[in-house]
Amino acid sequence: MPTTVNAVAALTPDGPLERTTIERRDVGPHEVRIDIAFAGICHSDIHTARGEWGDVTYPIVVGHEIAGTVAEVGAEVTKHQVGDRVGVGCMVDSCRECSSCTQGLEQYCLEGNIGTYAAVGRDGEPTMGGYSQQIVVTEDFVLRIPEGIELDEAAPLLCAGVTLYSPLHHWGAGPGKRVAIVGLGGLGHMGVKIAAAMGAEVTVLSQSLKKQEDGLRLGATSYHATSDPDTFTSLAGSFDLIVNTVSAKLDLDQYLGLLAVDGTMVNVGAPPEPLDVAVFSLIPFRRSFAGSAIGGIPETQEMLDFCAEKGIGAEIEVIGADQVNEAWERVVASDVRYRFVIDTSTLA
Amino acid sequence: MPTTVNAVAALTPDGPLERTTIERRDVGPHEVRIDIAFAGICHSDIHTARGEWGDVTYPIVVGHEIAGTVAEVGAEVTKHQVGDRVGVGCMVDSCRECSSCTQGLEQYCLEGNIGTYAAVGRDGEPTMGGYSQQIVVTEDFVLRIPEGIELDEAAPLLCAGVTLYSPLHHWGAGPGKRVAIVGLGGLGHMGVKIAAAMGAEVTVLSQSLKKQEDGLRLGATSYHATSDPDTFTSLAGSFDLIVNTVSAKLDLDQYLGLLAVDGTMVNVGAPPEPLDVAVFSLIPFRRSFAGSAIGGIPETQEMLDFCAEKGIGAEIEVIGADQVNEAWERVVASDVRYRFVIDTSTLA
Repeated sequence: MPTTVNAVAALTPDGPLERTTIERRDVGPHEVRIDIAFAGICHSDIHTARGEWGDVTYPIVVGHEIAGTVAEVGAEVTKHQVGDRVGVGCMVDSCRECSSCTQGLEQYCLEGNIGTYAAVGRDGEPTMGGYSQQIVVTEDFVLRIPEGIELDEAAPLLCAGVTLYSPLHHWGAGPGKRVAIVGLGGLGHMGVKIAAAMGAEVTVLSQSLKKQEDGLRLGATSYHATSDPDTFTSLAGSFDLIVNTVSAKLDLDQYLGLLAVDGTMVNVGAPPEPLDVAVFSLIPFRRSFAGSAIGGIPETQEMLDFCAEKGIGAEIEVIGADQVNEAWERVVASDVRYRFVIDTSTLA
Repeated sequence: MPTTVNAVAALTPDGPLERTTIERRDVGPHEVRIDIAFAGICHSDIHTARGEWGDVTYPIVVGHEIAGTVAEVGAEVTKHQVGDRVGVGCMVDSCRECSSCTQGLEQYCLEGNIGTYAAVGRDGEPTMGGYSQQIVVTEDFVLRIPEGIELDEAAPLLCAGVTLYSPLHHWGAGPGKRVAIVGLGGLGHMGVKIAAAMGAEVTVLSQSLKKQEDGLRLGATSYHATSDPDTFTSLAGSFDLIVNTVSAKLDLDQYLGLLAVDGTMVNVGAPPEPLDVAVFSLIPFRRSFAGSAIGGIPETQEMLDFCAEKGIGAEIEVIGADQVNEAWERVVASDVRYRFVIDTSTLA
């Protein structure tokens, strides 16, 4: 018999979020029920709930930065025990058989992974995310949150953290590598912390110098305003890796010009419009422009372990369930340092 | 005292090429004088001579696919001897001190390498290319052409060959890799031969099926017309590496959709207009879009040795000096299978 739990849902594309109840299924033999303690607010939640990334079914409960404790495990579960500190990110399942899944790259599942919300689960029901009291997830998509990280600061690692960790790790950020993070928001601030902890030399490229003090405190060694044209001349050819967290259309060729020989610029931000790229920005220095999506399950665990070891959590502002609408407005206005996290005990 | 040699030169951006004479300097202590036997015709020769890639000084002698024999060596030369079979490609020198040059990536010299033509040499004089009887070049930028390749078939390897070899090698073409070559022209036909010899599974993507028989003979295992929309659906996600030799603007997102997870599309063709790229073509499969320019000096030698070992030369049509204007028209019309090579003995 399904369990009724409290949640915050969008009922329409443009109305406010409202309190509601949803049903969570009984745990199957390989499933885990999680008491959600905290849910991070990701800009994707807003795009999705507002129908900006395609049609969705209402009511919709979003949230894919979930941290909590195991409340119940299925009969066959071996990976988790009641009471364990755990997290769930952007995916709750995948085909598990394709060449991506068998390599631990479930984010690139050839059948399409099953999103934590706005997808259809294996049970045929719409998936519902973390702005709720509980969630039931297959044990293989539940991550262990090590003791070294508080659950509230851990929640945003499940999306923002791994979205930055994955390209930094894949493209070899580390000692001797010059890394630029474009944009110092929810994603970017994780990028600065993680890249610095990996040993790279980190520069922030932000529209203004408004958050410079934060950027340097988080681990950057330099900070430049992209509104200043001198930035693009003085830093030409300076970076081995640029991770762009900005979802707005920017002048790509300007940024590609900042890459050294064999440098790569990776977008994790996804502007809706196409970008213009001059091939002459790429050819002379064998530069690359790439994209990267979250991270696979093994890599997400690796990231959590790395963050615990390095003492890294997100910089957060904890809010109650009744402040989510206001928080969304502030996220859209880029007015948060650096991630809102909903204390889901306020749903009770 | 400089040596006067016969050459074919462009005197204006739009007039025909004409016979003329140019001066070649005396060999310095580290220089080599080469009796040019053959000079390949590259589309870049035409773009440059016609001022399409920026202003140039006339008269201009182009040609950067040079094969011949050593006629004279400077007192300190150790790498080459009179009579050696040698080649010169797109560069005749570079700074030799920057991080690119010291890694053998002279093509990405941070000071800008010195082009075989349309540049200014270390002697302060304009460099003049291979459509001539002789050239004098520093020994370090002169390549050995192994016995296994005829000089006429070797000439186009110095630009077209290494332009394809370098990205194929850099991005790991070999057994188990699915490689597509876009465009079957002077560059593309070398790509098919080299990728197949590296052990990759090679597909040609060409506007039509007109050259299908050639493509399969050169080493491709499949051949598809890009004018057929089915090509882009049936081959979606199929390639680890796409090397695009086409210099026209194409629908980049269509081609990026052909890449598998972690696949890379590399442009060696350089369309003058910017291309549109949707970040959503890159993110879901961690795809990359990159550019690559010729190859460094060590890599060019490696390519020549590889081609000799594998019995690879360019597919050529040998012409006399008086046929160059006609040949240029045919290159512009893509009417050559697959490279014109000037027999420079006809300059005598």
